[in-house]
Amino acid sequence: MILVLKTNVEEKKIEELIRTLESSQIRVERTKGVDYTILALIGDTRSVNEGTILNSDIVHRIIHVQEPYKQANRLFHPENTTVKVGDCTIGGGEFAVIAGPCSVESEEQILTVAREVKKSGAKFLRGGAYKPRTSPYSFQGLGERGLDLLKLAKEETGLLIVSEILSTDQLDRFVRDVDIIQVGARNMQNFSLLKELGRVQKPVILKRGMSATMEEWLMSAEYIMAEGNKNVILCERGIRTFETYTRNTFDISAIPMIKHYSHLPIIADPSHATGRWWMVEPLAKAAVAAGADGLMVEVHPNPEKALSDGAQSLTLESYKKLMNEINLMIGKLAC
Amino acid sequence: MILVLKTNVEEKKIEELIRTLESSQIRVERTKGVDYTILALIGDTRSVNEGTILNSDIVHRIIHVQEPYKQANRLFHPENTTVKVGDCTIGGGEFAVIAGPCSVESEEQILTVAREVKKSGAKFLRGGAYKPRTSPYSFQGLGERGLDLLKLAKEETGLLIVSEILSTDQLDRFVRDVDIIQVGARNMQNFSLLKELGRVQKPVILKRGMSATMEEWLMSAEYIMAEGNKNVILCERGIRTFETYTRNTFDISAIPMIKHYSHLPIIADPSHATGRWWMVEPLAKAAVAAGADGLMVEVHPNPEKALSDGAQSLTLESYKKLMNEINLMIGKLAC
Amino acid sequence: MILVLKTNVEEKKIEELIRTLESSQIRVERTKGVDYTILALIGDTRSVNEGTILNSDIVHRIIHVQEPYKQANRLFHPENTTVKVGDCTIGGGEFAVIAGPCSVESEEQILTVAREVKKSGAKFLRGGAYKPRTSPYSFQGLGERGLDLLKLAKEETGLLIVSEILSTDQLDRFVRDVDIIQVGARNMQNFSLLKELGRVQKPVILKRGMSATMEEWLMSAEYIMAEGNKNVILCERGIRTFETYTRNTFDISAIPMIKHYSHLPIIADPSHATGRWWMVEPLAKAAVAAGADGLMVEVHPNPEKALSDGAQSLTLESYKKLMNEINLMIGKLAC
Amino acid sequence: MILVLKTNVEEKKIEELIRTLESSQIRVERTKGVDYTILALIGDTRSVNEGTILNSDIVHRIIHVQEPYKQANRLFHPENTTVKVGDCTIGGGEFAVIAGPCSVESEEQILTVAREVKKSGAKFLRGGAYKPRTSPYSFQGLGERGLDLLKLAKEETGLLIVSEILSTDQLDRFVRDVDIIQVGARNMQNFSLLKELGRVQKPVILKRGMSATMEEWLMSAEYIMAEGNKNVILCERGIRTFETYTRNTFDISAIPMIKHYSHLPIIADPSHATGRWWMVEPLAKAAVAAGADGLMVEVHPNPEKALSDGAQSLTLESYKKLMNEINLMIGKLAC
Repeated sequence: MILVLKTNVEEKKIEELIRTLESSQIRVERTKGVDYTILALIGDTRSVNEGTILNSDIVHRIIHVQEPYKQANRLFHPENTTVKVGDCTIGGGEFAVIAGPCSVESEEQILTVAREVKKSGAKFLRGGAYKPRTSPYSFQGLGERGLDLLKLAKEETGLLIVSEILSTDQLDRFVRDVDIIQVGARNMQNFSLLKELGRVQKPVILKRGMSATMEEWLMSAEYIMAEGNKNVILCERGIRTFETYTRNTFDISAIPMIKHYSHLPIIADPSHATGRWWMVEPLAKAAVAAGADGLMVEVHPNPEKALSDGAQSLTLESYKKLMNEINLMIGKLAC
Repeated sequence: MILVLKTNVEEKKIEELIRTLESSQIRVERTKGVDYTILALIGDTRSVNEGTILNSDIVHRIIHVQEPYKQANRLFHPENTTVKVGDCTIGGGEFAVIAGPCSVESEEQILTVAREVKKSGAKFLRGGAYKPRTSPYSFQGLGERGLDLLKLAKEETGLLIVSEILSTDQLDRFVRDVDIIQVGARNMQNFSLLKELGRVQKPVILKRGMSATMEEWLMSAEYIMAEGNKNVILCERGIRTFETYTRNTFDISAIPMIKHYSHLPIIADPSHATGRWWMVEPLAKAAVAAGADGLMVEVHPNPEKALSDGAQSLTLESYKKLMNEINLMIGKLAC
Repeated sequence: MILVLKTNVEEKKIEELIRTLESSQIRVERTKGVDYTILALIGDTRSVNEGTILNSDIVHRIIHVQEPYKQANRLFHPENTTVKVGDCTIGGGEFAVIAGPCSVESEEQILTVAREVKKSGAKFLRGGAYKPRTSPYSFQGLGERGLDLLKLAKEETGLLIVSEILSTDQLDRFVRDVDIIQVGARNMQNFSLLKELGRVQKPVILKRGMSATMEEWLMSAEYIMAEGNKNVILCERGIRTFETYTRNTFDISAIPMIKHYSHLPIIADPSHATGRWWMVEPLAKAAVAAGADGLMVEVHPNPEKALSDGAQSLTLESYKKLMNEINLMIGKLAC
Repeated sequence: MILVLKTNVEEKKIEELIRTLESSQIRVERTKGVDYTILALIGDTRSVNEGTILNSDIVHRIIHVQEPYKQANRLFHPENTTVKVGDCTIGGGEFAVIAGPCSVESEEQILTVAREVKKSGAKFLRGGAYKPRTSPYSFQGLGERGLDLLKLAKEETGLLIVSEILSTDQLDRFVRDVDIIQVGARNMQNFSLLKELGRVQKPVILKRGMSATMEEWLMSAEYIMAEGNKNVILCERGIRTFETYTRNTFDISAIPMIKHYSHLPIIADPSHATGRWWMVEPLAKAAVAAGADGLMVEVHPNPEKALSDGAQSLTLESYKKLMNEINLMIGKLAC
């Protein structure tokens, strides 16, 4: 941490500040520039109270030298993390495909999708049982019944199950019946939920918040990891920008950037990122080309009857076509 | 709801779409423009499945004519809502001041602030017991003990208590010991929490999400109101923009705009909006001039020792000076 | 154009508004919904004065049905536009590579780059003679001398020249010596410049403004096309978002989206979009996978000595490696 | 400037970098932290080539300690700047009101407005002769004829004239006939234009770009000042955010923030900031409360017939009412 001091500060006050800082295990080195004096704080600066510093009338500003995340930081963990889910691994070089409808709607719907995505090579079935909708008047998911149907689909097809959790009181059930617990964009900073997820060992897909920076996203991963659960998979699903032609703006640069700063696997969700089914194919291929560890794609046997997000769902047929093209790019899918 | 159809669409398909729509209590009127045909959907369009429509290969786009919020909409509730809290009301024309530290830190700290803000005319004491921090390594609040201390401060001073809830399992305790439950920016779309808050009658301060539009904010209010709790107070606390000199960008226009579209009271939090104590005064005065129903301000007896947000806290002295100036503008504070 | 009227409006006022509108070649159709009445305006609504409408005390809001761009709109020009530059075409299915340094710095520098990018298959050489820098104290480009050196490089290598114009008084020189005139992000809405560019027939690369929507970008293309120059190539170069780890956020979805709404060719500039040389390769490949018509890439013989944008420049060697990979994806480069 | 080095860097390479840096008048001080080594660069770091540094394979990142603007920086010019325009001054403690229509439309229109705003105390008349419109099909202003009419209004009323310039070839005429030259938001980074404006002594109102940070805005002021013209007035006119209920988001915090970092005067334009006439009054009052040096307000004798921006124009009557309220807050208007 570096403190830039104001100009024309009394020597006595600088010494006082240094004394205060050094009283908490920090060593301070001082450099006099042309206009500003800077203090470099050496040691574990997490204990430093920034309020104290910013309120000091001699500090102009604080600069953080180091990324605030530790466990998620590649600096301290140079090899890629691989997350084991059933017989599969995510992040170990193979490519994972998670496919399925936005919401679980009926036994017939989820089984139809499950059978078809399995045929095209997916090892993971996604399906929402609890849906976070902007409007209280929209379909909110089948709840427990949705989880029952996902379990049924798993029993029949062997696909691993991915579903979104909305609150801590659902955790026991999710740990029991779901293979990867998904945290949605709106809950990326629901810290109570993240802490609870850190106390189980179930893999977690952490979606990026709609206007979160990569640093904030990694800090949310840190919340889970700091409690003991290292099985975190990041998922880029588009951020909010001024653009209105797309639902969100897919931040393709998150893929190489997360790989640079972190060792965690990163997958891409081109369905939410665009909100338009006809854009899923070009963006899915772009994510593969940029080095993603996997894809999460919405598929529905009958998108025009979907109770949520029909506009961004692929049909079974267009999903199959996409998988053929991805296979050509990738060589072979995960596990 | 209006559907803009693509150009050169077969008549048969248009008729089919109209039939589908009309099967669900919707009346459709059709207008032929120069390049486009539009369909106006008349009736309760909440039941219309937009996925169906967007997947239809004849629809170019959907336009919503009406705001999606009903209970929060001034159109259906022209008079201002006033929220009763103890002997006070918020939104009825008087001006409410909610002051106190970011976090409750100790008995001495909270009692000192409580006594002082009372002297300067505040009727409400704020203080965080559970703190949503970006980093898991930052101070997370005193928890239950924090609520105990707030209760103590209320017993001594009679101030009404405002504190932030983070998860549904805290609800019983908050209902018992807190006078207004605050929902923070990061939980504005924690729909599980909003629904639970809708099932109690306790007043709720709903802070605007960091990148939420006013429409999304009002939809979150709608979640609470749709469950039965009409005691919602909105709080503008700054939105995220590209600016880095301030912590957030205080959206002053939210004040007249919310008053235009909704009947709910709106207060302003210039402390979080700027992140700098020396900007609190000009922005607090701006909020008063723009017509806010109240202010939420961070005050600390010793900001440079604050465990959170010290940089944006007023001292007791500067708080007193601010209140004098606000009183000159306002005439008189609430209740 | 659709007008949503306020509720409870006097019939007389509605009729008056309709009469006013119909006096200017517009036909009005009226639909009565449950809460709102809407007026559909049919005809060339460009002549409608929106101020008149919004000031009318009976109109709640205006909704535009049709995209405001005409000449750039695929609706009215279904086939792809191909832009002819020398012996090459851009947008006709082949893939165009434009490579070179951010700024022209010396004869040796530009000739070295020109020879090398030619070897790797580029047909276009980029180089800035006039540089729009955020700071007046930064290197502003060699000016006329820079254009002389580009001309020299063209004479020796036969590469076509791309360079950025900053103001209308440079136009004659650019028309004479440059093959494609580039308009930078900061000038995307410099309408005086766009109009002048519309009056020549030289191809124009129009970069997207840092916070421009796709609609605004196409409207800027429209400015050029409306004056008569149809040779417009769009270039996605990243938009501003909250992210700080990258210089800009590369909006990969612009590629399929522009191809959907417009017939103009679109190329990608992964160098500016990321600001980091090591991200150029994954994003360039993503752009190819998403369907871009070409790439603009910064290459410098000695990036650590570059007078501008060294951090995002490829070395000659890494450029060569990138071209090999692109060739594997594409098959063959343009012309 | 501070360089954070990567971990585990060879000593030899660090020494080499220090030598390179010190060869250009920079002194380097080195501090070894727990994970990172930092280098503090002391001296005039404007000459340092950041490309060199970022390309060096031992540098993790560059941190700027000092604001990049010098002439606009309050650090080097502690007293407020006052700009003299005719007999008036802006920034000297008095409050300046600049009022008038968005566009000059006719002799009658501009004279009517001029007479009325004068009566209510304005000393400055604004009116656009050249209009930067998003669409090439919208009214583009009367051009030279508009400037003639403003001159006429000045001759009759004595009001000082403010009008927007779009390109350098208009400069001679503006210097002759206009009292303050306005640079619009879209031209805030039209550096060719800024440089030319720096070479005259005419006062300039520099509007903030739609997505510009305060630092970039001050850097654009620096462009003008670096060429010799110190008469720069900043104008906050709203920034782009995700909000759609307002045209732009008025950044009220820019007022105290600019006063903190710079000595230049700052005025507010609530008309463009909101795009709705009924929001002008609350936001104008907020700007006064926050400490603005003046206001720029759109007034039209007949907003519903305005050729541009009618939706945000006050009528003569509502303007008069606003001025009465502002006068109550302010005491007395400028000059």
